[in-house]
Amino acid sequence: MTREKTPLWQSIASALTDDLAAGRYMPGDRLPTEAQLSARFGVNRHTVRRALRDLSDRDLVLSRRGAGVFVTQRPTDYPIGTRVRFHQNIRAAGRLPLRRILSQETRAGDEEETGALGLAQAARVHVSEGLSFADDLPMAYFRSVFPAADLPDLPHHLLATGSVTAALGACGVPDYTRAWTRITTERATATLALHLQCREGDPLLRTVSVNAATGGRPVEFGRTWFAGDRVTLTLDHERDPDPGPGSAPG
Amino acid sequence: MTREKTPLWQSIASALTDDLAAGRYMPGDRLPTEAQLSARFGVNRHTVRRALRDLSDRDLVLSRRGAGVFVTQRPTDYPIGTRVRFHQNIRAAGRLPLRRILSQETRAGDEEETGALGLAQAARVHVSEGLSFADDLPMAYFRSVFPAADLPDLPHHLLATGSVTAALGACGVPDYTRAWTRITTERATATLALHLQCREGDPLLRTVSVNAATGGRPVEFGRTWFAGDRVTLTLDHERDPDPGPGSAPG
Repeated sequence: MTREKTPLWQSIASALTDDLAAGRYMPGDRLPTEAQLSARFGVNRHTVRRALRDLSDRDLVLSRRGAGVFVTQRPTDYPIGTRVRFHQNIRAAGRLPLRRILSQETRAGDEEETGALGLAQAARVHVSEGLSFADDLPMAYFRSVFPAADLPDLPHHLLATGSVTAALGACGVPDYTRAWTRITTERATATLALHLQCREGDPLLRTVSVNAATGGRPVEFGRTWFAGDRVTLTLDHERDPDPGPGSAPG
Repeated sequence: MTREKTPLWQSIASALTDDLAAGRYMPGDRLPTEAQLSARFGVNRHTVRRALRDLSDRDLVLSRRGAGVFVTQRPTDYPIGTRVRFHQNIRAAGRLPLRRILSQETRAGDEEETGALGLAQAARVHVSEGLSFADDLPMAYFRSVFPAADLPDLPHHLLATGSVTAALGACGVPDYTRAWTRITTERATATLALHLQCREGDPLLRTVSVNAATGGRPVEFGRTWFAGDRVTLTLDHERDPDPGPGSAPG
């Protein structure tokens, strides 16, 4: 029985993907030359080229003739329709979605939060903050606010699954639709720049939105800060795909 | 017969509104103090205060206790629904809409333009560029592309009315709806900053969209750069107002 070895180019591609995910190279940056990468990994240029082709196939880098290989800046289409599902949106763009919860707390909601969720003043809310990734690159920072009395176990399920759709499903909300979205732009603060691996002051797309369960009861009040160079928000007014519940988790 | 004189405060309010429209004070700037304005206009502070109250009533400035009077930065809601009508949107926000056409030309469309409009390669298109104002403050720079063979007289009507809806109506297109919209953010170039009276590098909201006549024929391919601090794009997924044709010109 032969033991299969990981091809050299694959481990180089994986190391470079880690570099991108860690923000060592920013969107728009030029990667080191093939000669430099050959020296760094101790392999020949043919192997480096094979690794770069893999990154290019995954749209992580763009080779510009005569100029070098650059970290891609092509934005990912992110549909804002009747059903906005993060995992589904990123998968539809041919990328690998991942959500990482950074903090969770349960506290009294402020006026805006309870107003958006239709709750009594100072009612308890769960607040989850975290990062959304596509192919290991941060796409957005999110802060989601949920009605705590209605959905007591939501934080547990959200942490376990990383999916709002799955967590709501586990709490007895089989489906939800987008009620409204407000879109603005703002500059990245130092904190957001750190999270999103962009530069302080870079333009971000910010959405504020409410998702409601069937029947109209609001179940999520969300704010999302999208890295401006990585996301295009898209609206298909005529043909909202609206795949309905039961599809992949959002 | 008495000749009515314009009250002093009104002409001061009008002079200050001109200052804002000319970009002498930018959103977020502090206006001169009441004492400085009294000296400039040669009136007492009471009259200055009356003028500032008028600007404040029109949401052009915001008085911050102890800090002074600031040019307002509160963004105008701009609904992106099935029917996107500039004049209607601005009027609904309680502001006075105005469109100024800066240039018009008829030329061969590029690949993106003819693709979006469903035209043959290099088909002729009308291209109109200009500025959209609310209360004399620039909200957006737009570039609209129309199929020239279908709508030969459109540039004439657009120049005469300043309204896409009215111009399309005069060309035999009684109604049109938004097919799709793509939203990104980008930094203001020097030219756009000049037009939009913002600073170079300020974040803008950019939409790219297609409007289609009843039946689906595309009639307008538009790009719009909104001043990021003056506009919030809003989506009401459940209750698109959809007032239908025959309402105010867009």
